[in-house]
Amino acid sequence: MQNWVEKQALIAPDHLAVTDGSQRLTFSQLLTDTQQINGQLTQAGFAPQKAVALLANNSFEAYRIAMALLASGRPIVWLNKRLQSTELLRQIQNSQSGGVIVEDALWRDDLANQAVSFSDLLNLPAQSLALQSEFDPNGTASIMFTSGTTGRPKGVVQTFNNHFSSAVSSMLNLGMTPTDEWLCAVPIFHISGFSILMRGLIYGMTVRLVPRFEAKMVHTILVNEPITTLSVVPFMLKKLLAQQVTTGEPYNSKFRVMLLGGGPIDLATLNQSQKAGIAVVQSYGMTETASQVVALSNQDAPAHIGSVGKPLFLTQIRLTDDQGEILLKTPALSPATIGQRTTTTARVMTPDGWYQTGDIGHFDAAGFLYVDGRVDDMIISGGENIFPDEVEAAYQAFAGLQEISVVGEKSPDWGMVPVAFIVADSSVTAEALTMYGRRKLAHYKVPKRFIKVTELPKNASGKVQRAKLRAQLAINP
Amino acid sequence: MQNWVEKQALIAPDHLAVTDGSQRLTFSQLLTDTQQINGQLTQAGFAPQKAVALLANNSFEAYRIAMALLASGRPIVWLNKRLQSTELLRQIQNSQSGGVIVEDALWRDDLANQAVSFSDLLNLPAQSLALQSEFDPNGTASIMFTSGTTGRPKGVVQTFNNHFSSAVSSMLNLGMTPTDEWLCAVPIFHISGFSILMRGLIYGMTVRLVPRFEAKMVHTILVNEPITTLSVVPFMLKKLLAQQVTTGEPYNSKFRVMLLGGGPIDLATLNQSQKAGIAVVQSYGMTETASQVVALSNQDAPAHIGSVGKPLFLTQIRLTDDQGEILLKTPALSPATIGQRTTTTARVMTPDGWYQTGDIGHFDAAGFLYVDGRVDDMIISGGENIFPDEVEAAYQAFAGLQEISVVGEKSPDWGMVPVAFIVADSSVTAEALTMYGRRKLAHYKVPKRFIKVTELPKNASGKVQRAKLRAQLAINP
Repeated sequence: MQNWVEKQALIAPDHLAVTDGSQRLTFSQLLTDTQQINGQLTQAGFAPQKAVALLANNSFEAYRIAMALLASGRPIVWLNKRLQSTELLRQIQNSQSGGVIVEDALWRDDLANQAVSFSDLLNLPAQSLALQSEFDPNGTASIMFTSGTTGRPKGVVQTFNNHFSSAVSSMLNLGMTPTDEWLCAVPIFHISGFSILMRGLIYGMTVRLVPRFEAKMVHTILVNEPITTLSVVPFMLKKLLAQQVTTGEPYNSKFRVMLLGGGPIDLATLNQSQKAGIAVVQSYGMTETASQVVALSNQDAPAHIGSVGKPLFLTQIRLTDDQGEILLKTPALSPATIGQRTTTTARVMTPDGWYQTGDIGHFDAAGFLYVDGRVDDMIISGGENIFPDEVEAAYQAFAGLQEISVVGEKSPDWGMVPVAFIVADSSVTAEALTMYGRRKLAHYKVPKRFIKVTELPKNASGKVQRAKLRAQLAINP
Repeated sequence: MQNWVEKQALIAPDHLAVTDGSQRLTFSQLLTDTQQINGQLTQAGFAPQKAVALLANNSFEAYRIAMALLASGRPIVWLNKRLQSTELLRQIQNSQSGGVIVEDALWRDDLANQAVSFSDLLNLPAQSLALQSEFDPNGTASIMFTSGTTGRPKGVVQTFNNHFSSAVSSMLNLGMTPTDEWLCAVPIFHISGFSILMRGLIYGMTVRLVPRFEAKMVHTILVNEPITTLSVVPFMLKKLLAQQVTTGEPYNSKFRVMLLGGGPIDLATLNQSQKAGIAVVQSYGMTETASQVVALSNQDAPAHIGSVGKPLFLTQIRLTDDQGEILLKTPALSPATIGQRTTTTARVMTPDGWYQTGDIGHFDAAGFLYVDGRVDDMIISGGENIFPDEVEAAYQAFAGLQEISVVGEKSPDWGMVPVAFIVADSSVTAEALTMYGRRKLAHYKVPKRFIKVTELPKNASGKVQRAKLRAQLAINP
């Protein structure tokens, strides 16, 4: 496969590759730029073919350096800026990176002896160096450490073919026109953001970068610039809808769709989007599949609230008979992980080649998929399955309750029973919570105990770490 | 890979798969229909996994049977209805087909002992039979015998992955929207037509079939139906432009692009298309690459008249140093041919994996490709290359000259010299032709002799067989 940067410079030289609103690069300029940065990377001592870690914001410079790493044959190891330096150092080591390039604004002295800053790199003498002429489809393009809620993060290897298959799947689902422009307000060090950069390179499409999600700014861009597509998570969608209600300003006439990840939306939000004339495509995907593998169209959403949709053209899904674990096949599936704990390795692939997602789900009669929770989180009580998500959702509206997380605790009578950790006002009593739960849920789903804590343990993405709660119960029942 | 018919029935059940203007099938109905025809194919004695030849028009029934063959795991051997039965019988045998299914209107008694007619097949008792659940990407989807101008036709094997890669390449170039509808007025037994059916199945897109190209009818459909895309060859484009000039009727508002194959268009036709607001994307491709591999956009066309464009995203092209033969790499490339003559086999692949097209070309400074002629047709005279196409084109406007074909003849002085076979009025003299040629061409390009014939030998597609003319010169100089 020809180097994608060189390819787009050949077939779409004058098309805008990227803009952050002030700076701009066409694909032809991107080629020249990546050749120059390749020279600077070499001067800075980054060996060809060796992975390089990147600690970056959604900046124009981060885009330029990421493209130069890809196009020069150096796999990108995406670091999550929310992690501690000790964790980042471990990831740099596990991925055998030849060092780390750090955005000036994110500079950390405790990484310094492995690191070069963006400005130090880009201020090296300009010296153009030829790129790698071909991309090996099975070669590593990028490595992302998943911010799992259990255990140590594992580095997911994403190949060029993984990214290509993902981009093609997305195109077969959402369509694509030569004037498409995708706004990237999600982190480029997550697959949600990086997959936008890859689609840009594969489609020959403009990527519009914003430094971070800020509802008012993103709304203004959607109104005034020719953005066709935007990736969001539920809270971003809600904030943007609020902006639309406040301002009454419609988006630009080319706007086509919001691609929503990170969980399905509720009926009220869906209705509000439809009222505002905003098409929302919900989706399900993961770092291991280089972005979405299941999607739900705007048209299908009202009749299938809570569903993540149907498997995309290149994805096959089936459920295990026992637990209903979601198994999948897709050419976008990562071939390998690094630094994986032995305890979780066994659960990755079935003998006949299906990837075990660790998610539990079910299909409705029309073939729409619903994700019910994580295998690790499921509580089997007296032969019945209890999904913590469902129990927690039932308590959403309980007055005085700020946070709740439900896990299983061993029980001599039932095998396991649900137990809730809560952050709540002092007025909230276990009796009231139990009574409330019994009105909303089957009785076996109501937590047997409510344990008050001052805060719930969370990972870098803000997800509650139920594993830590389970460990706490085991130590101190 | 999941069976594409089953996949679309799952993800786009209510989307229209095909219509001929009166009959219609959604993807869900197509699934039921192909399951039923699978039952009928089995009753008719067609073994699973064995190829089946198809002799068909662009009919609704031909589409249904073709889809049933594909979806039931039986490779389709597409027969060209313009060929003689002896030739077809040889193709059926070479492809090891388990028989031939013949459209009623094309029935031939001399094929009868291997054949079943469409109506006999479709009148067998309805008996639904499960399809093949997966498509092997490297398995054979179809076989097409190329109507080459030299030698015996060879059967080109097209895999599922070839068709998929081709459809993806086309989508990356032309874009695709969920409401696309592609009109198929080119033969479905050629790759130009069959690739439309495959795109329909891969994109989940509606295919609009017409029985044959008839300018007035196709024009009316483009005006009144929501057609977005149409494949044409130059004469079809010219006829359609004439219709537009006559009627003044614009096409429907969704109309987006005409994909032109079969040679570049002249500036006058291009200007006329642009005046009429019709975007024409020119292209270069072949049966061996499952459709186009190079394309020229509407926007680039005026500055690069005569070019076929730039290699698509998945295609790499280079030219040999000596002759400028076009070499290519693409995942759409057929992995094998059957019944190939040993004399041509040697020329198919270079040792480092490039496909030798047999076409000669050149790039301009901006990277646009021009196809100059066939390797076999090129005449090297005194060290200079002469392309018959160029010489013939120079005589286009010569009064009284109906047809001309130029080939090389051995010469003791020059190695080779150009010689012309002509169909012309009795008033046309060799002297006048020579004088005319010298005003239009470099002198070494002017044919040394003009041989009058009553007609030129042509193949089933109407292309002049220069090989026969060369053979004639060799026997009878």
